[in-house]
Amino acid sequence: MMKPESVLLHPLGTAAAAVSEMLCIFGTGDLGRSLGLRLLQSGYRVVYGSRRPHSCGPLPQGAQVMSHAEAAQSASLIFICVHREHYAFLETMASHLKEKVLVDLSNNLKKNLYPEANAAYLQRLVPGAAVVKGLNTLSAWALQNGLLAGKQVYLCGDSAEAKQAVAEMSTKLGLTVLDKGSLSAARELEDFPLQLFQEWRLPLRVAVGLIAFFFFYLLIRDVIYAYVEQGKDISFRITVALGNKVFPIVSLIMLSLCYLPGVIAAFLQLYRGTKYRRFPDWLNRWMLCRKQMGLIALGLAFLHAIYTFVTPTRYSVRHKLISLVVDEMKNNKTTPFYFDNTEAWGQDSFYVLGILGFFLYVLLGLTSLPSVGGSLSWREFNFIQSKLGHLTLIICTTHGYIYGWNKFLQPSTYKWYTPPGYMLCLIVPSVVLVLKALVLLPCVDRTLTRIRQGWERKQPDEEMVKATNL
Amino acid sequence: MMKPESVLLHPLGTAAAAVSEMLCIFGTGDLGRSLGLRLLQSGYRVVYGSRRPHSCGPLPQGAQVMSHAEAAQSASLIFICVHREHYAFLETMASHLKEKVLVDLSNNLKKNLYPEANAAYLQRLVPGAAVVKGLNTLSAWALQNGLLAGKQVYLCGDSAEAKQAVAEMSTKLGLTVLDKGSLSAARELEDFPLQLFQEWRLPLRVAVGLIAFFFFYLLIRDVIYAYVEQGKDISFRITVALGNKVFPIVSLIMLSLCYLPGVIAAFLQLYRGTKYRRFPDWLNRWMLCRKQMGLIALGLAFLHAIYTFVTPTRYSVRHKLISLVVDEMKNNKTTPFYFDNTEAWGQDSFYVLGILGFFLYVLLGLTSLPSVGGSLSWREFNFIQSKLGHLTLIICTTHGYIYGWNKFLQPSTYKWYTPPGYMLCLIVPSVVLVLKALVLLPCVDRTLTRIRQGWERKQPDEEMVKATNL
Amino acid sequence: MMKPESVLLHPLGTAAAAVSEMLCIFGTGDLGRSLGLRLLQSGYRVVYGSRRPHSCGPLPQGAQVMSHAEAAQSASLIFICVHREHYAFLETMASHLKEKVLVDLSNNLKKNLYPEANAAYLQRLVPGAAVVKGLNTLSAWALQNGLLAGKQVYLCGDSAEAKQAVAEMSTKLGLTVLDKGSLSAARELEDFPLQLFQEWRLPLRVAVGLIAFFFFYLLIRDVIYAYVEQGKDISFRITVALGNKVFPIVSLIMLSLCYLPGVIAAFLQLYRGTKYRRFPDWLNRWMLCRKQMGLIALGLAFLHAIYTFVTPTRYSVRHKLISLVVDEMKNNKTTPFYFDNTEAWGQDSFYVLGILGFFLYVLLGLTSLPSVGGSLSWREFNFIQSKLGHLTLIICTTHGYIYGWNKFLQPSTYKWYTPPGYMLCLIVPSVVLVLKALVLLPCVDRTLTRIRQGWERKQPDEEMVKATNL
Repeated sequence: MMKPESVLLHPLGTAAAAVSEMLCIFGTGDLGRSLGLRLLQSGYRVVYGSRRPHSCGPLPQGAQVMSHAEAAQSASLIFICVHREHYAFLETMASHLKEKVLVDLSNNLKKNLYPEANAAYLQRLVPGAAVVKGLNTLSAWALQNGLLAGKQVYLCGDSAEAKQAVAEMSTKLGLTVLDKGSLSAARELEDFPLQLFQEWRLPLRVAVGLIAFFFFYLLIRDVIYAYVEQGKDISFRITVALGNKVFPIVSLIMLSLCYLPGVIAAFLQLYRGTKYRRFPDWLNRWMLCRKQMGLIALGLAFLHAIYTFVTPTRYSVRHKLISLVVDEMKNNKTTPFYFDNTEAWGQDSFYVLGILGFFLYVLLGLTSLPSVGGSLSWREFNFIQSKLGHLTLIICTTHGYIYGWNKFLQPSTYKWYTPPGYMLCLIVPSVVLVLKALVLLPCVDRTLTRIRQGWERKQPDEEMVKATNL
Repeated sequence: MMKPESVLLHPLGTAAAAVSEMLCIFGTGDLGRSLGLRLLQSGYRVVYGSRRPHSCGPLPQGAQVMSHAEAAQSASLIFICVHREHYAFLETMASHLKEKVLVDLSNNLKKNLYPEANAAYLQRLVPGAAVVKGLNTLSAWALQNGLLAGKQVYLCGDSAEAKQAVAEMSTKLGLTVLDKGSLSAARELEDFPLQLFQEWRLPLRVAVGLIAFFFFYLLIRDVIYAYVEQGKDISFRITVALGNKVFPIVSLIMLSLCYLPGVIAAFLQLYRGTKYRRFPDWLNRWMLCRKQMGLIALGLAFLHAIYTFVTPTRYSVRHKLISLVVDEMKNNKTTPFYFDNTEAWGQDSFYVLGILGFFLYVLLGLTSLPSVGGSLSWREFNFIQSKLGHLTLIICTTHGYIYGWNKFLQPSTYKWYTPPGYMLCLIVPSVVLVLKALVLLPCVDRTLTRIRQGWERKQPDEEMVKATNL
Repeated sequence: MMKPESVLLHPLGTAAAAVSEMLCIFGTGDLGRSLGLRLLQSGYRVVYGSRRPHSCGPLPQGAQVMSHAEAAQSASLIFICVHREHYAFLETMASHLKEKVLVDLSNNLKKNLYPEANAAYLQRLVPGAAVVKGLNTLSAWALQNGLLAGKQVYLCGDSAEAKQAVAEMSTKLGLTVLDKGSLSAARELEDFPLQLFQEWRLPLRVAVGLIAFFFFYLLIRDVIYAYVEQGKDISFRITVALGNKVFPIVSLIMLSLCYLPGVIAAFLQLYRGTKYRRFPDWLNRWMLCRKQMGLIALGLAFLHAIYTFVTPTRYSVRHKLISLVVDEMKNNKTTPFYFDNTEAWGQDSFYVLGILGFFLYVLLGLTSLPSVGGSLSWREFNFIQSKLGHLTLIICTTHGYIYGWNKFLQPSTYKWYTPPGYMLCLIVPSVVLVLKALVLLPCVDRTLTRIRQGWERKQPDEEMVKATNL
């Protein structure tokens, strides 16, 4: 009865014995058809359940179509590719669905459209079945075009067994599965595809707020001041000149806001003497959107760069240049006229710092691309985001300081007793850099490193336990 | 006989019992060696089949070498890493290959080099074996450097059993498998690695055609007109100045061509009253290359931006500026001479729209990177490509309109009775925007939304069926 | 006894029978907790081993905590998430760990901190267990945030059985496993997360060396020469003007260094008459860092571009322009004054070539992004990196030649008898292009193609064997 030889000669025996599994799909819409195609391509047999098995349009080659009841009978795993609004018919079929695994792939058009999650509703309609919520982040388009490799999907459900069956099927499709627990997580999973830049909202709000503030501040200080005090109409400056002040200011502030929470966390850990107490919520949320803050800062720096490149072709700049020359001639000066070496040094350094800062900015942005960041080792990622990031901040802050190096003592700088925009924008980065310098002092750094390795100041008895673990 | 305890103590039992499977590779070339290395690293045992087992060069450590016949005997799955030209010897070995799975990894240098696919030829030579075509998109380089994680490969073959064996092996290598059906799909799989920018061809042809047309059109209108009518030689303009007209013109047209098929599809659906009828082929092909069209448009916009940045350093521009100043002096005007506020506003708005348009362009391009697009939810992707895309089109079109705002009524604009290039380039985007605006009218939008949710105007009896499915 | 029917009705039977496997984690630190969370999400049961099971802080929901000994008893696979410094306690537990699989995830802070690898040390402490080194490239952060899909991890260990158990678990987590052999490879695996831009070091050193050389060379030729011979202080040029000479020079040299090894390899193969002899080590190492060289070249070209865009707004450039105009006026020239058509053509061609070269540079850089390159077929990747790459080199080299087209015969170019920088930088690219042109000669190309297909000049008897293999 044992045929050990045949194992070597016939190692495909196991595969040969098992006819490939039959899966059932209720619903012949876009998603149902794409899913069926993909399942067939992964080696499953597929049967569709349809109200009108004879007139349900083109289905993937190789799939069968039956009535819902017949289709349900021939498979143990059933995908429900039907709008929630039409779930009612499943209640009437409950007897056919007993002991079956029902995968709920449905999504809603809005959050909180219904009092209970679609999957919970389905479970209530068919109490005898094991409902698994999941795969609802897959689009018909991704299924059809074979874009599943390496994608991550979420599952939840009350039956571990049912979840495992769905997980195995998903793995075969090239997906990676994350179990989100019981069916009560279904609402969370259903809200997932409805998210619209969730983690971008806070940074975008901060950016818009800062841009609005500085826009009006500089509008008053520059354009309205000139109109009121000097009677000049320089309103044309609103478009380019003002933008080229607002964008770099907000960019620098947002960049420093990326590095501020890290410093605050360090001081909090130093103060508490342990790393095992949770940070306050606002700090956690802030730290989670640092990447988005940095990318918005990069976008604004990019705008600043283009604004600067375009400057010399502007009408008003050329007009000013011509006026300058004509003035020079009227005063009958001889050439070569005075060349201000300090001015040349100052301006060129200003440009070089700006260019290098922008270059590093772009480098930081590139490494935040998922595919680039993913190919870095943790130590490399850390080096770039921390070391290079702080270097960028230093360079950009110096760029700001040089801009005003010879102006900050002139009373004319303080129109209507307000400081110019570039001064305001230097406050946050300067604070961040000073605090960071404090953290890097040898004595502070040593304590902090020990805390981060698990050492605790106040509970000497628990110290050993913590310090041993990775 | 049952030892339930041992399950807990020895959960590795199953793994321990099965000695790892032996796979055979015919051919010791680059691909054969790299594949063997990768299989060994994934836990398989590997035996090479070679004509001269004793002089076949360096093989991966741990692999055995035998004659073809011996090697074939010791495994049930054989990779054929041999050029098609040398398949003949396999016919003589057919008896040793009976019931074996032969994986054909071969590729050809050109399409249609042979009347039948390599895999079909192999199957004809060895009718007793189960030939599976596949993995032929993997390069020796990718195998050697472990770049397989998450890659997708295609399989086809007439034996479901054989395909399943190859699929299981591929999954263990970290690959995701797509079954393309029977062995008749082998030619398609063999043509795959020979593709050279298939989906880029149409957009590139459109781009080259448009660039050529506008180049000659503007060459005649600008350079040749100036030579014939005014006797001036401004041929130097061909390089920079002409390019900086042609590139933005074609870029804007290509961008609008990205959004035109979507509007056409909407009107077609409205006219037909259903979404269940296939679009005509030309529209489908057009819609499939929208991404490539957009990226080419971005490339041209990038060139336009750099051309513009470089403009003020050009000899001819500086020459013109100096002439202007000297003229100004000769006419003995006094400073401050006339500052045209409208001109300043107009030009600055023109620049700002151009900059913002380019910024959004770049954003669209970034989200079309596979790794960035893949990390967005479907709703986010849709928001960016549709909402932001149309905003970009609006801004860039306005940028074009402002360029000519004060020129279009002057007769001198219409040299030789031809309209200037920027006017021509505004036609398509304006049409797209008007049509899109029509689609967004509440009454039209409502009907369209219902159609896209599965509602049909003409077949009321089938309506319910369609509308229920996802 | 056989229930074939039940197979159809109950295909989940197998999944249902097996209670999900219990895994043990020693250590409740960041890594231990994140790993446990991920294992639970993938369907495993998790038990923690802790010194103080009752006060070890927050653990993932669903996990149990026990003493080390009890926890070890209930699972066969134990993750050691403890610092190497604290491994000692494991020796005392050796009896409980007999026949268990111990996964060593530890990393060190520096290379060569200890005489033996952590995993080897662990194996010495617990000889009865099967130690597997691996997964140590995963960070707590990646585990927590579900960033494992498609990642590649390495394993090594002396027990094939133990490795297979860990590999199966890793596959279930969405990881792709590469077996690196016996436990003696543990040091290599432990050094892996400590790597800091290993493959960037050589290219960065070359870049820094070249930048330093050309910086001082041009400093002497430009700034110091002007000070010594003409008594002029033009030290302000160090920041922008000098940088804008050094960066393009080094960029062009580095770009040509990307293509030099390929040409050298071709000539070596031609000389040897075979492709089966290994290249010398220096050539191999050079070829492996071509991508990094190219990216650094792109970075420098990017800097060159921004430097150029900023040029017209610089104080010294504006000063020179004004001087020019005032001079023009003093000499009382009339407008329109002389327009040098050759100069206009030369400069505009110079700019166009620079712009196109930079555009192609950026294109090359984009396709070297992992996610973009991964979506290209091998033939497409080859087309871009080889054909477009050489085109870029030709265009950028011509850009360099045009820069000096009308200067190289003037004696004033050779200050202190030294050639200007741009001449030096044209040597390597010119050599590469000439050699490449030689390789592309039909007679040479034919021989080379045959060699690369496996043909050998000197050993006619082995020829057939090699030529048959892929």
